[in-house]
Amino acid sequence: MTDPQPRPLSQMAPEELVALRDRQRSAHGDLVAEGLSLDVTRGKPSAAQLDLSDALLRLPSSTRDRSGTDVRNYGGLQGLAELREIFAELLGVQPDQLAAGGNSSLTMMRDCLVDLLLFGGVDSPRPWSQEESLTFVCPVPGYDRHFALLEELGIGMVTVPMTPDGPDAEAVAALVKDDPSIKGMWIVPTYANPTGSVCTQEVAARLAAMETAAPDFKIFWDNAYAVHHLTEDEAKSADILSLAAAAGNPHRPLTFASTSKITYAGAGVAFLGCSTDQVAWYLAHLGKGSIGPDKVNQLRHVELFGDAAGVRAHMARHREIIAPKFAEVDRVLSERLGGYEVASWNSPAGGYFVSLDVLPGTASRVVALAKEAGLALTPAGASFPYGQDPEDTNIRLAPTMPPVEEVTAAMETVATCVLLAAAEQLTKEN
Amino acid sequence: MTDPQPRPLSQMAPEELVALRDRQRSAHGDLVAEGLSLDVTRGKPSAAQLDLSDALLRLPSSTRDRSGTDVRNYGGLQGLAELREIFAELLGVQPDQLAAGGNSSLTMMRDCLVDLLLFGGVDSPRPWSQEESLTFVCPVPGYDRHFALLEELGIGMVTVPMTPDGPDAEAVAALVKDDPSIKGMWIVPTYANPTGSVCTQEVAARLAAMETAAPDFKIFWDNAYAVHHLTEDEAKSADILSLAAAAGNPHRPLTFASTSKITYAGAGVAFLGCSTDQVAWYLAHLGKGSIGPDKVNQLRHVELFGDAAGVRAHMARHREIIAPKFAEVDRVLSERLGGYEVASWNSPAGGYFVSLDVLPGTASRVVALAKEAGLALTPAGASFPYGQDPEDTNIRLAPTMPPVEEVTAAMETVATCVLLAAAEQLTKEN
Repeated sequence: MTDPQPRPLSQMAPEELVALRDRQRSAHGDLVAEGLSLDVTRGKPSAAQLDLSDALLRLPSSTRDRSGTDVRNYGGLQGLAELREIFAELLGVQPDQLAAGGNSSLTMMRDCLVDLLLFGGVDSPRPWSQEESLTFVCPVPGYDRHFALLEELGIGMVTVPMTPDGPDAEAVAALVKDDPSIKGMWIVPTYANPTGSVCTQEVAARLAAMETAAPDFKIFWDNAYAVHHLTEDEAKSADILSLAAAAGNPHRPLTFASTSKITYAGAGVAFLGCSTDQVAWYLAHLGKGSIGPDKVNQLRHVELFGDAAGVRAHMARHREIIAPKFAEVDRVLSERLGGYEVASWNSPAGGYFVSLDVLPGTASRVVALAKEAGLALTPAGASFPYGQDPEDTNIRLAPTMPPVEEVTAAMETVATCVLLAAAEQLTKEN
Repeated sequence: MTDPQPRPLSQMAPEELVALRDRQRSAHGDLVAEGLSLDVTRGKPSAAQLDLSDALLRLPSSTRDRSGTDVRNYGGLQGLAELREIFAELLGVQPDQLAAGGNSSLTMMRDCLVDLLLFGGVDSPRPWSQEESLTFVCPVPGYDRHFALLEELGIGMVTVPMTPDGPDAEAVAALVKDDPSIKGMWIVPTYANPTGSVCTQEVAARLAAMETAAPDFKIFWDNAYAVHHLTEDEAKSADILSLAAAAGNPHRPLTFASTSKITYAGAGVAFLGCSTDQVAWYLAHLGKGSIGPDKVNQLRHVELFGDAAGVRAHMARHREIIAPKFAEVDRVLSERLGGYEVASWNSPAGGYFVSLDVLPGTASRVVALAKEAGLALTPAGASFPYGQDPEDTNIRLAPTMPPVEEVTAAMETVATCVLLAAAEQLTKEN
C-alpha cells in the first residue's frame, strides 16, 4: 500500500493530507478486517533460537566440576570457576571479579539495589535507605524494567538523552557533580535497549572518571547484549571496570550479563561483574539467603560451550536466525515510510530492538491503532521512567520472536498506523 | 572404649572421675593420632541420595508444559501449574496458594522478609522498616540460617523452648499478645532442625489463632522436611493455612518447602505457600526482579515424579539410605554414653538432624576436642540466635552425608569427647 509519490507530510497541502489519511484509514480498516494476531512487544528469543541450545536438555554428562565438587549438592556461592572463566573472557573482566548466579541478571540488579538500600555499599557512609532522597540518572529511551525497579524501591529518576555513542556523558556529569542524592545510573552499554547505541570508550571513560557528589555513586552497567551481534562488525564493550579502577573509582561499576538470550531465556545463568571487594560484599549478603546457585545448570552451560569461542560460534548462529528479521524491519519501514518524514528508526548492529520515533504526539495513537489491527506493540512511553514519554514519540519494536513472515506483516501494519496517526494529527481541526 | 561399669558421673567419687577422665584422654589421644577426617556439620544429602535423582540429567523430554507454553522462554512467574499441583497435594495447600520458584526456599524467606521491611505485607499498616523495633520469636534450639538472616536484617530475636510437640505455644502467645514490635516467628513444623520435633495440630492451632499485638504477625513456617520421614510412621504436617484462615488470620502463615533434600540440594525447586492475596503480593514484588523461574528445571521435576505418589516413593528410597545412619548414631551414643548421665539426644522420626545435649558448659569443649581428633562438628551455639547457647549444652549432629562407617567413627569420637569434656569439668579444681 505504498503511496504513489511519497514526500514529506509537512510539505503536503491540506487536501493531500486528507487524501493520504483516508487511504491509510482504508488500509487500516482492511487490516482490522483481516483479524491479524501479531506481537512484537518483548525481546524474546524465537523457538528456532532456543533450539540452538537443546543439547542442554541432555547435559551435563558429568556431575562433578573441575575441582571435583559434586554439583548436585549445596555450596559454591560464587558459581563454577570454569563458567566464570568463559564469561570473564567474553565480558573482559577477571574471573574473581565475577559471580555466576541463577537464571536472571534482573534479580541480581534488584538484589544489589536492595542491599544498597538496606546496608549501603562498600563505599557508602550509610545505608541508602537513610538518605533523604535517592535519584538515578536514566538515559532515555531505555529499558522499562530498569525504571520499574527504581519506581518500586522509591528511587527517583532524572533523564538524560541516549546518543548513538551511549548516554550523553556531559549531561550525566553535570547532574551528578553537585547533587549527593544522585546515587547511580543505568546504562545498557552495548546495543542498548531500545536504541541499539554502543557506548564508546570515551563515554565510558568519562562516566568512570567524572566527579560525583555521592561518594558511592554506582553505574548499573547492564551488558545484556555484550555478544549479541547482528553484523560481522562486532562491537567491543568498553572496559568499564578497568576504566573506573584507573580513575580511582574501582567500586563505581556494577556490571551484569546473562545467557538468557544466548541459551534459554528462562533457564540460563546470570553474572555480576565488579571489583573483588564488591563481589565479596554481594556474596556476603547473598549468602544469608542462599547456599549456592544451581551448579548443575552452570555445568550444563560449561559443557555446552566448552570455551569463550564456543559462545561466539553459538552467537553467530543466533545472528543467522535474527539478522534477517531486523533487515526485514528496515526494509518494510523504509519502503513504506521513506520520503514522508514522519518517522525515524535505527538499524541496530546488535541487540534485540529497533527504536522507532514517530511524529511527536502520535506514538500512543499508533499503538492503539496497531492494537485494533491485531498487532501488539510495547505500550508507548514504556522506554521512559513512569511510562511517560514527554514527546509521545518513541515506540520499541522487538522483531526476534515472530517468524520473518510475521515480522513483515507486523511492520506493514506499523507503517500504516504511523502514517495514519500522522495524517490524522496534521488534519485535525484546530 | 566402653567403660567397664557405666554409672552416672554425678555419683562417682573424685578418684573415679579422674580415672575416667584419664582413660578418655588417652582414648582421645589415640583418635588424634589416627588423623581422622570426618564431618557431620551440615544437613547435606549423600552422593547415594543424589544418585536417586540422576534421571534429571536427561530430562525434560519435552520443552512444553501442559498448557503448551515453551518452558525454555521467559515468563510464568508463579511456576508451572503441574508442579504446583504435585506439591500442593504434598503440602496440603491449594495450587493457587503456591508459588514455585528457584533453587532455594531460603532465598524466598529472605525475599519475603526484605519485602516486608521495604513495603510491608498485605495486612501491614506500614513497611516494617518504619517500625521502631522488630523482633521475631525463635524456638530454640533452631536453624542457624534462620537466625543469621534476622541478624543481617537487624531484626531482634527472643527465644522460646522447643518441645517435642513444637514450639512452646503458651510462651509464644504470652510474648506476642501485648508487644506490637514482635512481628513474626520461625518454626520448622515437621522434623524440626535440630530437635526432630513435630508440631502438633493443637500447637499449630494455638499459633494460628493466638492474639497478636502486631496486626501483621507472620509465622515463617519452614516445612523443609515435610516428606522426609525416617520411619513408616509418617508425620502429617499441621494444616497451618487452613487453621489460620479459620481463625480469621489468613495472612499469618508464610510456608516454605523445597526439593533440595528430595532431588538435588543445589538444583531443586523451592515453594512458597500462603493466602492467595499474599501469593499475589509476593509475585508483584518478585516480578520487578524476575521474568520467571527456571521452568525447564520445574518441568524436569514434573517428569521425574509424575505425581505426588512419585515423590512419596522417591522419599522411601531416601529413607532406605539414611535411616541406618540415624540408627547408627543412636546405637553408638547409647552404647558409649548410656549410664553416665552426661548426655541426651533424640531419635528423630524424620528430618536431617540429631540434637545432642551434653553436660551444660561443655558443648564448646566437646566441639574443640572433636576438632583436635579430626571430626568437624557444627559450632556449639549454632542452634541459638547469635550463636549463643546460654547453657553451652547443645550440639547438632548431621549424619546423612558421610557413609555409615564414617558415621560410626564420628559417633565414637563424639562419645569420647563428650565423656572427656564432662570428666574434665567435674574434676576441675575450683
